[in-house]
Amino acid sequence: MSGWGDKTVILPLGYRYAAEYAGIRKQEKDDLALIVPDSPAQAAAVFTQNVVQASPVRLARKHLHRSNSKVAAVLVNAGNANCATRTGDRVALATCKALARALRTKTEYVIPSSTGVIGVELDSKLILDALPGLIGKLAPDAFDSVADAILTTDTRRKVASEELKLKNGVVRVAGMTKGSGMIHPNMATTLGFVMTDAAMDAGELHKLLRAATERSYNSLCVDGDTSTNDMVLLLANGASGVRPGGKERLVLQEVITWVMESLAEQIAADGEGARKLIVIRACGFKTNDDARRIARSVANSPLVKTAIAGSDPNWGRILAAAGYSGVKFDPADIEIDLQGVPVCRRGVAAEYDEPELKQKLDQAEVRIRIASRAKGKGEARFFTCDLTEGYIEINGSYRT
Amino acid sequence: MSGWGDKTVILPLGYRYAAEYAGIRKQEKDDLALIVPDSPAQAAAVFTQNVVQASPVRLARKHLHRSNSKVAAVLVNAGNANCATRTGDRVALATCKALARALRTKTEYVIPSSTGVIGVELDSKLILDALPGLIGKLAPDAFDSVADAILTTDTRRKVASEELKLKNGVVRVAGMTKGSGMIHPNMATTLGFVMTDAAMDAGELHKLLRAATERSYNSLCVDGDTSTNDMVLLLANGASGVRPGGKERLVLQEVITWVMESLAEQIAADGEGARKLIVIRACGFKTNDDARRIARSVANSPLVKTAIAGSDPNWGRILAAAGYSGVKFDPADIEIDLQGVPVCRRGVAAEYDEPELKQKLDQAEVRIRIASRAKGKGEARFFTCDLTEGYIEINGSYRT
Repeated sequence: MSGWGDKTVILPLGYRYAAEYAGIRKQEKDDLALIVPDSPAQAAAVFTQNVVQASPVRLARKHLHRSNSKVAAVLVNAGNANCATRTGDRVALATCKALARALRTKTEYVIPSSTGVIGVELDSKLILDALPGLIGKLAPDAFDSVADAILTTDTRRKVASEELKLKNGVVRVAGMTKGSGMIHPNMATTLGFVMTDAAMDAGELHKLLRAATERSYNSLCVDGDTSTNDMVLLLANGASGVRPGGKERLVLQEVITWVMESLAEQIAADGEGARKLIVIRACGFKTNDDARRIARSVANSPLVKTAIAGSDPNWGRILAAAGYSGVKFDPADIEIDLQGVPVCRRGVAAEYDEPELKQKLDQAEVRIRIASRAKGKGEARFFTCDLTEGYIEINGSYRT
Repeated sequence: MSGWGDKTVILPLGYRYAAEYAGIRKQEKDDLALIVPDSPAQAAAVFTQNVVQASPVRLARKHLHRSNSKVAAVLVNAGNANCATRTGDRVALATCKALARALRTKTEYVIPSSTGVIGVELDSKLILDALPGLIGKLAPDAFDSVADAILTTDTRRKVASEELKLKNGVVRVAGMTKGSGMIHPNMATTLGFVMTDAAMDAGELHKLLRAATERSYNSLCVDGDTSTNDMVLLLANGASGVRPGGKERLVLQEVITWVMESLAEQIAADGEGARKLIVIRACGFKTNDDARRIARSVANSPLVKTAIAGSDPNWGRILAAAGYSGVKFDPADIEIDLQGVPVCRRGVAAEYDEPELKQKLDQAEVRIRIASRAKGKGEARFFTCDLTEGYIEINGSYRT
């Protein structure tokens, strides 16, 4: 599959993109971006579960409701979350209205989205002044410029795409995302925009997004611990002229899930200060939910993450993190593998070649498997990253 | 109140202490320690809630049960957690047995306790060989040597003490603790040993310890997220000859709580890489539990902790952390104060002098108050520390 920054993105038909510097962030770097399907697209979205929700999140929900999930434009800004401010609701609405007028569409067909600092008033004039220039720049091949404009503390662009040959023709899927602070992702605003040129109806699209989100963004420790602005939006404009039928929809769902998994992986790999992507697989537990809680607990453990940063096969920390996940299990049933090497069997140390394993842990991707010998059907996968620097100076050298 | 390392500890009557290097940790630094009341003390203990429990934790529970909570000796080692090992149970039992024989007491009167790496076999011979020398060293004034021996990645000794004049005489309380990795305390083994020379019966002592733990160790984010070895032990040997009656017991409970709060604060202040102690107070929420969940969520937020490290009054992160605590509230009701300065009122920014506040945030202790205007009676307090270094390079400079 494609993705990871510099690769060429396969572009779905019938979308235009634009990005511009509107002066929202201090650094002169594009901070306002636009995604416009040639005709209103069918949309599905998932939003943050935080009690404190930014104005654009609340307005986006309202607009999707009013428009029967039709989207004619997505207006994103970086540098200001437009959250916990006096004027937030007015600013979000005013910018959507102005854009709708300029694009000759309805206000509720515009989805606003913001990321950046919380609690600082966002000056709507900056956006209103920039809109004409932004609209003038709209172009089918400006996908990457939008993918760049939405980044905040990210160190690299995060995009992924796929194409899929169906009976009646080819459909394409392309996604972009932003996300930082993934050491604990609880506050990192994650935005994700995924476009396809397949034709899908509203119900299908919602179901598909839910399922794909579960395996991608919600396996990134984002669920529950959400920011005020999180949002993943999936658009299907039908520009390919292909409407997947029956089983084809499942294949398309799989492909969109791949794209979103790649985006989630890229977020984990670009965690602040991260040098390694960590993929945790839990299996053999009673239920998927049990496996999920265990994988998540391991993914959230700073001591596991510092051990991996230091290439230290300290599986005791993994076992202990599983132990406080809230899931009941018998420690004597537990098996742990690091990079495919058994390090723990029946809850105690397995025999392994430590220098060799340490070398394997130096790789950019580390795989942790934690399995129960109880042979349940529950399994789950989680993405996270290692935890480096000051914290590791103490923890990474603790064992040796 | 006393505490914080170098101060002289007020020693309860009737306890002897000893520490020795037994060769368990690689660095030549005392790693085996002993606390011995002159006659068996009444004891109460709280233990880790982790599913994975170290052998000494399981044996300590058993011994307290069998002895009707009488303790004649506490044997602690650092450098090896004696957890998730093949021989763990045997090692814990063998060392308790040997010590009981040497002290002419019963095996179930000995409490074992370990801290250090998980999953590495602990060689009982190291301990057995060191016991005679250790016992020979027992002395009433060797309290600090034990407080030092139990430390692992801690940078300083953590002790606190108080004396209390009651109607029938003076009683004394002294405690020592260890704890590290407090950036998230979920894996840091915390051991706490608190001794008093007051006379207390078993039921009183248990009740007292539960209440004091709630306000100290369990307000350090330790509850739920526990290590395999956590244990806090309270001993009352009655050597003062004073048995507090009626209301006096409540005063003693308060004093023991102070000592334990001081120990918890010292753990937070010595969090790995920490430069600041952060004390979070939540009030005005519906229930104590609501307040607690909010305070804990703020205490656990790496983005709040990096902001404090950078003396950045980024209250939006505090609001957002409260928002994902799971507690329902209206953001428009929220007030936030930093170092006593109002920074958020009715969910939006208050007017404050940012340079002046930044200076106040440079202090070694930072106080965060998050209150609801709903004027509920629920309140809670939590201790944590700032998050420094690599992680702050990105997050601390994010806003400015």
